[in-house]
Amino acid sequence: MKGMLVIISGPSGSGKGTVVKNLKYALSISVTTRKRRETEEHGVDYFFCTEEEFIRMRENDELLEHAAYVGKFYGTPRKYVEERIDKGEVVVLEIEVNGAIQVKEKFPDAVLIFLIPPSIDDLAKRLAFRNTEDSLEIEDRITRALEEIELIDRYDYLVVNDDIPVTVSEIETIVTAEYLKPHRSKDRIEKFAFAKTSNIAEASHQI
Amino acid sequence: MKGMLVIISGPSGSGKGTVVKNLKYALSISVTTRKRRETEEHGVDYFFCTEEEFIRMRENDELLEHAAYVGKFYGTPRKYVEERIDKGEVVVLEIEVNGAIQVKEKFPDAVLIFLIPPSIDDLAKRLAFRNTEDSLEIEDRITRALEEIELIDRYDYLVVNDDIPVTVSEIETIVTAEYLKPHRSKDRIEKFAFAKTSNIAEASHQI
Repeated sequence: MKGMLVIISGPSGSGKGTVVKNLKYALSISVTTRKRRETEEHGVDYFFCTEEEFIRMRENDELLEHAAYVGKFYGTPRKYVEERIDKGEVVVLEIEVNGAIQVKEKFPDAVLIFLIPPSIDDLAKRLAFRNTEDSLEIEDRITRALEEIELIDRYDYLVVNDDIPVTVSEIETIVTAEYLKPHRSKDRIEKFAFAKTSNIAEASHQI
Repeated sequence: MKGMLVIISGPSGSGKGTVVKNLKYALSISVTTRKRRETEEHGVDYFFCTEEEFIRMRENDELLEHAAYVGKFYGTPRKYVEERIDKGEVVVLEIEVNGAIQVKEKFPDAVLIFLIPPSIDDLAKRLAFRNTEDSLEIEDRITRALEEIELIDRYDYLVVNDDIPVTVSEIETIVTAEYLKPHRSKDRIEKFAFAKTSNIAEASHQI
């Protein structure tokens, strides 16, 4: 059975990083043109490449999505994702809303999950607790979160992240249910209808 | 939170009757023009009505689907289903393929689940085991099952019924995942975005 691509998005402060780390599925590895840090490994943390290589990949439609951040390129390699899915693995991609919508267009079988905290007030509290943003930045992130939730209809599922273990189990429930969709069940349908090619009358007598 | 309508179809011999009885959800009650049997109760087993009443309901679009069987009418009362869903209940309707497709057209939020045995040979064995059909009838039911599976893309899920407890748990998983769809999450989205109506800057400071 084929695996599937699960995309998880959510506002900064939704806790998606922690959730993703606690899932039992493989994480997708991004391609990037930024410099490798000492602690990072090629093919584990990122696929590091030159700008020329990145542009070539983008032009050859080898990236499911791509974005620039602080002058460096980041992208999701189609081949890596497809190979793992063909092997039957669930591949998780943590990515922002625009990237997620890009991937869904190229890869309609992807499952898009949007993660939110229970309320805007919780979001503000979580962001303040991190102590990495000042109140203007927090205001900005809240505004962005409210803009992002307007795009929720482009997503397949909405999960409220109130408690990590519950959220992790809800995402696993989504994956189990997705495996039961007809378009992911070609092999089970074939197995069921197998006798079609032999004689039906025979099947009804062979007991 | 609103409930949902879950429709379960499957070939004769798929075991859907047993599965439905083992679900923790309420069963829909059909309207019928056939005579009440001594053991049956109005409003529990069926809503019994006259042919005139049935025709009036049908004309007033009060039935989600209807069919005739041995000269009697059967239908699913829209009002009964909608009231229970509004109360937050999951209502299960066991119905054949054409009826299921009729309901989905009138009620797009309905979740359609198709149940099959692992293979045509299993189906033949189960039908023979019941000992209520002769081999020609079995042949006929197998042919119909193979025709029905062609319509699988009209369904939302396909469940292979190999083991009743597993099947029951898969259907419950589907219901849980369906509750996480954005169009069933209006209340959670409202709750999240509540601070939108108050001052965002305030939310970012109120910690």
